[in-house]
Amino acid sequence: MDALIALAGPDMAAVDTLIRKHMDSPVPVIPALADHLIAGSAKRLRPLLTVAAARLAGARDDACLKLAAAVEFIHTATLLHDDVVDSSQLRRGRVAAHLIWGAPSSVLVGDFLFARSFELMVGAGSMAALEILARASRVIAEGEVLQLTRAHDMDLSQDLYLEIIRAKTAELFAAAAEAGAVSAGATPERCRALRKFGQDLGIAFQLVDDALDYSGETGALGKNPGDDFREGKATLPLLLAMARTGASEREFWVRTVDRLEQVDGDFERARDLMRQTGALDATLELAGGYAQSAKAALSEFGANSWRPALEDLADFAVMRQA
Amino acid sequence: MDALIALAGPDMAAVDTLIRKHMDSPVPVIPALADHLIAGSAKRLRPLLTVAAARLAGARDDACLKLAAAVEFIHTATLLHDDVVDSSQLRRGRVAAHLIWGAPSSVLVGDFLFARSFELMVGAGSMAALEILARASRVIAEGEVLQLTRAHDMDLSQDLYLEIIRAKTAELFAAAAEAGAVSAGATPERCRALRKFGQDLGIAFQLVDDALDYSGETGALGKNPGDDFREGKATLPLLLAMARTGASEREFWVRTVDRLEQVDGDFERARDLMRQTGALDATLELAGGYAQSAKAALSEFGANSWRPALEDLADFAVMRQA
Repeated sequence: MDALIALAGPDMAAVDTLIRKHMDSPVPVIPALADHLIAGSAKRLRPLLTVAAARLAGARDDACLKLAAAVEFIHTATLLHDDVVDSSQLRRGRVAAHLIWGAPSSVLVGDFLFARSFELMVGAGSMAALEILARASRVIAEGEVLQLTRAHDMDLSQDLYLEIIRAKTAELFAAAAEAGAVSAGATPERCRALRKFGQDLGIAFQLVDDALDYSGETGALGKNPGDDFREGKATLPLLLAMARTGASEREFWVRTVDRLEQVDGDFERARDLMRQTGALDATLELAGGYAQSAKAALSEFGANSWRPALEDLADFAVMRQA
Repeated sequence: MDALIALAGPDMAAVDTLIRKHMDSPVPVIPALADHLIAGSAKRLRPLLTVAAARLAGARDDACLKLAAAVEFIHTATLLHDDVVDSSQLRRGRVAAHLIWGAPSSVLVGDFLFARSFELMVGAGSMAALEILARASRVIAEGEVLQLTRAHDMDLSQDLYLEIIRAKTAELFAAAAEAGAVSAGATPERCRALRKFGQDLGIAFQLVDDALDYSGETGALGKNPGDDFREGKATLPLLLAMARTGASEREFWVRTVDRLEQVDGDFERARDLMRQTGALDATLELAGGYAQSAKAALSEFGANSWRPALEDLADFAVMRQA
């Protein structure tokens, strides 16, 4: 990702200034809680996508910077609410905000950031970009509710799993890229191409995330591996492992995933079954396919230093260890 | 309010259709939970304000209807999150949604409605109205956080109390009216006048709400009286009663409000002290002053059947028993 980080450096520094400025409030808990989460993010992938899409599409002005900050605020708001919903302990290497300031503050500061994101979008002045991000915010919420009501289902189909991650994760990647392209005045074809790039990148990203929850290390991840398993969340590695060992291990899966009666060693056993059955490899392979498809979407664009940088981003999404 | 309800009837029927249509989702929990709360609202005061402000300002088209639906969605989203934050039991005469579907669903469906409100605003097509409502959403969240961190403070000043209710309640009334006026293409003076009307109406409304929490009846209120007292929430009736009996009843207030150590009969005693010291009457008198000030703001507008109807609304806000 070095090329992209170097190219986008000045823009991302400006985005960071916007983020700092707009998370401020006369109510002290708000910037304190927001900073706890926002400062923990090293990558800022989603706003980076907005900036890179806008520049690849030829943006000369800075409207994309406000949109990029808005995208990071939407993302941060959803993380705050997710951690309350999932009772997560750790996020971005830090104790989850709701464990420090309480769930009520996390919910309300999430609302603050969400509202701020729309103020930033108004500042960017593009009704088309606003529509894309408003829609994405709604689709994300639908995806989260769908996950909440269905994701503990041992019989979840792969199609429904993909529908959930398309909504809860890939939609913001897609909208981030599309909003950047739209704000740059790109043609409808190019806007669609960048939306497709973002969407496929987002799916690849979430697939790898779900694999890392079984194969990663706490220090690198910034969260505890095994969280999904402990919650009985039916992600693809688990769905594949269950499908591939359905006959011999049925009792184990029913006890640990369906009834959530877990004892020490269960997570390690699940992980071993995943490795043995190739469920982790198959998940990463699928992610690789989406990353390839993301890169192919960029064929719309000719010689431009942003294009290979975005292609690297797709590779990074699959290769990353955290 | 009969005149206003009759005048706004056709518009409000159209707003209701928009609300029904836009709370729908392929994820079944979303319309079920949203309907539970939205169907419980008989008055729809805030969207009514948007429609009435737009029509008073001469709106001939229907852009205000989408904005009105958006206003109701913002309001419903904040109610859903508030009830989670305050662990409320009852809302609009029904069991609070989080007690039926769980707090996670309430948080996420609130997010869905909030996002939908911005989609509706995009549909209305006025960036100026969008800015007003995005700002209001942010101010409401700030007010809620301020209330969360300060409202259990026995030494809360009346000024800070008013700042909190101006943010958490009156801002949406102000923005609802202003957005209606703006979408009608009203002059800046008239937009400001309608904003002022909404703001003062909103303050009067919340003051009466806070008084009713001590003097109202469950059946009429649709929520349990005494909730504020049980939470130790420093609303104006309580602040005034404490100030007026500070010497003789100090121990009672410290135990019940500061330490939240309450026993049977404490709420009744607090209510008696409020009546004896005139704290309830003083709260209602202040509300009456804001209602008068709201009506005065309408002097900008000449003969138009909407003006007396809105004046009635200000009187209703103070006279209501629920």
